[in-house]
Amino acid sequence: MINVLFATLPVRWEQYETPLKEAFETAGLDVDLRTKFAPEEVDYIVYAPNSEVQDFTPYTRCKAVLNLWAGVENVVGNTTLTQPLARMVDPGMTRGMVEFVVGHVMRHHLGMDLHIKGQDGVWRDHVPPLAQDRRVTVLGLGELGLACAQGLAGMGFPVTGWSRRQKSANGITCLSGDNGLATALSTADALVLLLPKTPATENLLNHERLAQMPKGAFIVNPGRGELIDDAALLAALDTGHIAHATLDVFRNEPLPKENPFWAHPSVTVTPHIASETRARTASQVIAENIQRGETGAPFLHLVDRTAGY
Amino acid sequence: MINVLFATLPVRWEQYETPLKEAFETAGLDVDLRTKFAPEEVDYIVYAPNSEVQDFTPYTRCKAVLNLWAGVENVVGNTTLTQPLARMVDPGMTRGMVEFVVGHVMRHHLGMDLHIKGQDGVWRDHVPPLAQDRRVTVLGLGELGLACAQGLAGMGFPVTGWSRRQKSANGITCLSGDNGLATALSTADALVLLLPKTPATENLLNHERLAQMPKGAFIVNPGRGELIDDAALLAALDTGHIAHATLDVFRNEPLPKENPFWAHPSVTVTPHIASETRARTASQVIAENIQRGETGAPFLHLVDRTAGY
Repeated sequence: MINVLFATLPVRWEQYETPLKEAFETAGLDVDLRTKFAPEEVDYIVYAPNSEVQDFTPYTRCKAVLNLWAGVENVVGNTTLTQPLARMVDPGMTRGMVEFVVGHVMRHHLGMDLHIKGQDGVWRDHVPPLAQDRRVTVLGLGELGLACAQGLAGMGFPVTGWSRRQKSANGITCLSGDNGLATALSTADALVLLLPKTPATENLLNHERLAQMPKGAFIVNPGRGELIDDAALLAALDTGHIAHATLDVFRNEPLPKENPFWAHPSVTVTPHIASETRARTASQVIAENIQRGETGAPFLHLVDRTAGY
Repeated sequence: MINVLFATLPVRWEQYETPLKEAFETAGLDVDLRTKFAPEEVDYIVYAPNSEVQDFTPYTRCKAVLNLWAGVENVVGNTTLTQPLARMVDPGMTRGMVEFVVGHVMRHHLGMDLHIKGQDGVWRDHVPPLAQDRRVTVLGLGELGLACAQGLAGMGFPVTGWSRRQKSANGITCLSGDNGLATALSTADALVLLLPKTPATENLLNHERLAQMPKGAFIVNPGRGELIDDAALLAALDTGHIAHATLDVFRNEPLPKENPFWAHPSVTVTPHIASETRARTASQVIAENIQRGETGAPFLHLVDRTAGY
């Protein structure tokens, strides 16, 4: 019997209890999974940095701490944590992002809102253009950006990807640098933002760069709220230069009720749902790592404590 | 100079004038395209069966009649038409269908309507399941059904395809026959209808077969209105057994304003836009056929006048 402590906020237990037990069973692991144990009886800790467990000293036989989050910045500096620490790399998170991005680009591409909101008995049989005639630009070609660019290309869109450093990817027009950014924006009938948040990307989509986009373009931002100058975007939406923005991330979350994005007719606020660790796929990664711990194999996604990630 | 008569309803001229001229230029054809010519000066007729031209006798030097429609049932019996007749096979039509089907399945899969309609300042951060956990069934594996099944599988959905006769397709679970239909329906978290209209498929989705579907499933019908027993569908939507239906085709089109589908909160009526000949891709097919006529190559999609299609 392997004793696994589930140490997160209580709300996660509801999401993870069943998927984790199923993943353990599928992996052939005989696990006792609980939210409470005597610390000295715990073999593994499934962990979220905002849990009550902050002192790892009493967990004397714990073989590994398995973080449920991709980010470990709030636990890697904990000096009581001497056990191996693994971060979460969830294949479901990438798939979820691709589904969100392709789904919302298709929504705007097909002009679905007209029908979803306009069930008034009027037969508006305008046929949308084909994906091959709608140019999509993805800013950011990291793991998520590249996966989304490929998903969009698979649907038939001509896709341009822009990144700070030049990359190359099959079927994607790859651009980089300042000139590349101007070109990427000027051909963006649809723009997807998947850049990381750095000093160089903050307010990247400002008044000047919004003006470089084609009139009537739409924007999907599942990346970071800070990538957009909010006032400049609202101004571009008001003039109609930008037709619509679907925003999943914000400087302050949950987005305050009084924020003008909620009420703007050309904005869809989604509540940071594009990319999230999924209980089922993340549970499979946890089970895999416990199996590795039990057989002496190296842990997946082990954190380099000196580098900090 | 090649004289091409554009003989359709006047509304099509607005859609086709530019794409046709561009396609002729790209093909290197020196064409005079007009909606009026002296009949004896016409080299080719771009044709729709509902145009004013019904007597082809005066078009003495016409080398071919190039139908803009896939269906030729309203022209193939015209005894004055002795010239070669080609029907339209438009690659854009298949792509448009795939885009409509994938887009609307993604819409329901992601639960987009909640956010599109619910911009009320409430942060509802429910994360949808992944496509890999949403089973989709496509009824009908003709050219359109197969293309849609493959598009959905490409997005990560587990796809079952059902057809009258057994087929096989890479990455699709193919079923056939009555037992196969029961299985295909019982595993359809999402159901896409792309069967042809025949006596055997009329009212196929009746009360009994709707009951075989999982509770909470959704339906997308871009096939034929007659495939569904409308009263049975409305009943299943009223009980919530079927969560939503997106209907693009109807027994009577345009769908009359008083039809209960328009007002039903769980129905989206779209105005027969899923699959239509697209001006740009259809124009390329027309140009290709004129080029073939000029060089003596065989015409594409020539109608067999005896078989009638």
